[in-house]
Amino acid sequence: MIYANYAATSPALSPVVVQELHGYLGETHLNAGRNFEGLEAGAIALRARRAVAKLLGVADPLRVIFTSGATQSLNMAINGLVREGDHVLSTSVEHNAAARPLEALRKNGVIELEWLQCDPDGSLDPEKIRGAIRKNTRLLVMTHASNVLGTILPVTECFRIAHEYGVLTILDMAQTGGVLPFTMEDYGAGNSPTKVGVANSDVVAFAGHKGLRGLAGTGGFVIGEAAAGQMRPWISGGTGSVSQSLDMPEFMPDKFEPGTQNTIGILSLAASVEEILRTGVETIRERERASTARFIAGLGQIKKIAVCGTLDPDRCVSVVSVAIPGHDAGEVSRFLFENHSIITRSGLHCSPLAHRTAGTFPGGTIRFSFGSRTSNGDIDAILEALDGV
Amino acid sequence: MIYANYAATSPALSPVVVQELHGYLGETHLNAGRNFEGLEAGAIALRARRAVAKLLGVADPLRVIFTSGATQSLNMAINGLVREGDHVLSTSVEHNAAARPLEALRKNGVIELEWLQCDPDGSLDPEKIRGAIRKNTRLLVMTHASNVLGTILPVTECFRIAHEYGVLTILDMAQTGGVLPFTMEDYGAGNSPTKVGVANSDVVAFAGHKGLRGLAGTGGFVIGEAAAGQMRPWISGGTGSVSQSLDMPEFMPDKFEPGTQNTIGILSLAASVEEILRTGVETIRERERASTARFIAGLGQIKKIAVCGTLDPDRCVSVVSVAIPGHDAGEVSRFLFENHSIITRSGLHCSPLAHRTAGTFPGGTIRFSFGSRTSNGDIDAILEALDGV
Repeated sequence: MIYANYAATSPALSPVVVQELHGYLGETHLNAGRNFEGLEAGAIALRARRAVAKLLGVADPLRVIFTSGATQSLNMAINGLVREGDHVLSTSVEHNAAARPLEALRKNGVIELEWLQCDPDGSLDPEKIRGAIRKNTRLLVMTHASNVLGTILPVTECFRIAHEYGVLTILDMAQTGGVLPFTMEDYGAGNSPTKVGVANSDVVAFAGHKGLRGLAGTGGFVIGEAAAGQMRPWISGGTGSVSQSLDMPEFMPDKFEPGTQNTIGILSLAASVEEILRTGVETIRERERASTARFIAGLGQIKKIAVCGTLDPDRCVSVVSVAIPGHDAGEVSRFLFENHSIITRSGLHCSPLAHRTAGTFPGGTIRFSFGSRTSNGDIDAILEALDGV
Repeated sequence: MIYANYAATSPALSPVVVQELHGYLGETHLNAGRNFEGLEAGAIALRARRAVAKLLGVADPLRVIFTSGATQSLNMAINGLVREGDHVLSTSVEHNAAARPLEALRKNGVIELEWLQCDPDGSLDPEKIRGAIRKNTRLLVMTHASNVLGTILPVTECFRIAHEYGVLTILDMAQTGGVLPFTMEDYGAGNSPTKVGVANSDVVAFAGHKGLRGLAGTGGFVIGEAAAGQMRPWISGGTGSVSQSLDMPEFMPDKFEPGTQNTIGILSLAASVEEILRTGVETIRERERASTARFIAGLGQIKKIAVCGTLDPDRCVSVVSVAIPGHDAGEVSRFLFENHSIITRSGLHCSPLAHRTAGTFPGGTIRFSFGSRTSNGDIDAILEALDGV
């Protein structure tokens, strides 16, 4: 099997993570209640919060919130921040995890919604944001990299402009967490960051099972102090704190973490992110950049193939969509699977917006995405198989 | 250690479940995409849906929806069903998982909210529902058994009355799933059920990590056909289906299951519920009833102790709250933990409403709850320790 679907899910937990999870399953977990010190679930969550905070350059681990995934994180942040009558900006390459909750709010008459048009290769001119901001613009929701085209959006500059106008920002890091260096740094008024990968987003949503290499069904978001105060808890319930009240607590992380947590999932994140930190995101990025460069260069040799998105491996994550004129994407994907044991994802990739932007709607593309276990041999085998389509 | 906190979390997975999860962790999970047949995650989910459907007497497994737990299930059902201006009924023994989302809707001016007053022992006269229903009453939200008092509510009769008036119902089975026989049966107009434990609730929310003995961070809800059509998807995102649209699909289960699922958690539920079905819920109920009866009888011999809730073990689940006049609940709980290795939960148990109903607010109670591994020896040791307080 050659796995080229990392953009959907990381195919295997690392041995270090698996070992920790086996250990966890072997134990009895006595819930000594929220009444006693040294609570196991709380300790595991704190360990994971620290790892994620370090990965994303966040000072306070208690501003890392765990959820069931990037989808829930985006729903919480979007619905928790908007008010009736707000104008919301987003981009024409968003995943349905952001696009569908935004569209639901628009349809229900809660918000006005505007998709900033990206170029066909997925790139966006940050100045378009300045042009689109109105008096009632409250929120900019933006993916860090398209899950279809791989193209990295210029979030640093986009968020600097948004903040100039007091617009709150939500960054969707589903495709970039653990694979692109990133620091959520408070650069303050007038101190725009110069380093690539440094951005001051009010909310950063992440998925646990892709670049962070944890179990499926994990994820969360990181939230800045100002936004945390403004954001309503979209989901309410028992927190074991302020239990005398029917209101959610105002403090972090309880304000956004009601109910019983997915402790084994959070443990997987703690162990996997710690391993990523040991390896270094820069190292991971360089390896993935090299895989992507090799693949794009090879695709250039196959005349019938049209590469969607940027051809510059410095400007994309390890996600490459291709179309083969005259061939149905689903059929090519199935051919690669059945004849060459290559696992890809074809179709619209839960992002009709990106496909409209790239001009590949409704037929879709065949998407190849690489990750921690992708070898040069895998890349070459895929290229050879594509040549034979 | 003597574990008497089953109402919070089941302390250990059964060996059968652990074995399956070890196997799952040992494998590589190649996400062959939603494009190919025989998908592993989908197959695991279907297996779990079938087990839960059988447990709750539901004909169609696709009406079993998995979420991150009962809290998310209740938030989804409540927020998905209410409309602005609705009148909503609930009871004075609800957990904050239901009470807080309801109170948030009331505070935001979306609904009018009325708590049906239960008696101090947690029981409720179903006729109170008839008296409270107004023209704009849309929803009745009700726990199956109080998580503080253990008292079972007469849901069969309550839901029959609600449905007479076209009021939708949400049942919170967090405390009763897997430990009380229950069938979600469509009894139709005029055919009121006579069997205890048969009810036609429009939505039944369940937790995975208590009586169902799965991993923490699991749960879901079962929804009737009519309610499924009326309920909006409160959470939106990618479903791998109808991907050309920015609206959620209308069909089940996709309508309510966006994003990547917690597959290991769902696998734990599949394996644990299958085991519960092999044992039989009636057998589990009888064993837990016997533990509770032994405990209540023993408490009757300790004069200083006041038992909250019903003294009839036929009318409660294995949850018993006690107060010791002159003693702080938290201190007693700590004493039992430190001197006798007995794990309980003291305080308000995320249900201030139930404590107000029982007259134990704000001091709270010491709660004992029993389950699959509780022995008569455990019960007797707890009674002896309590005698020494």
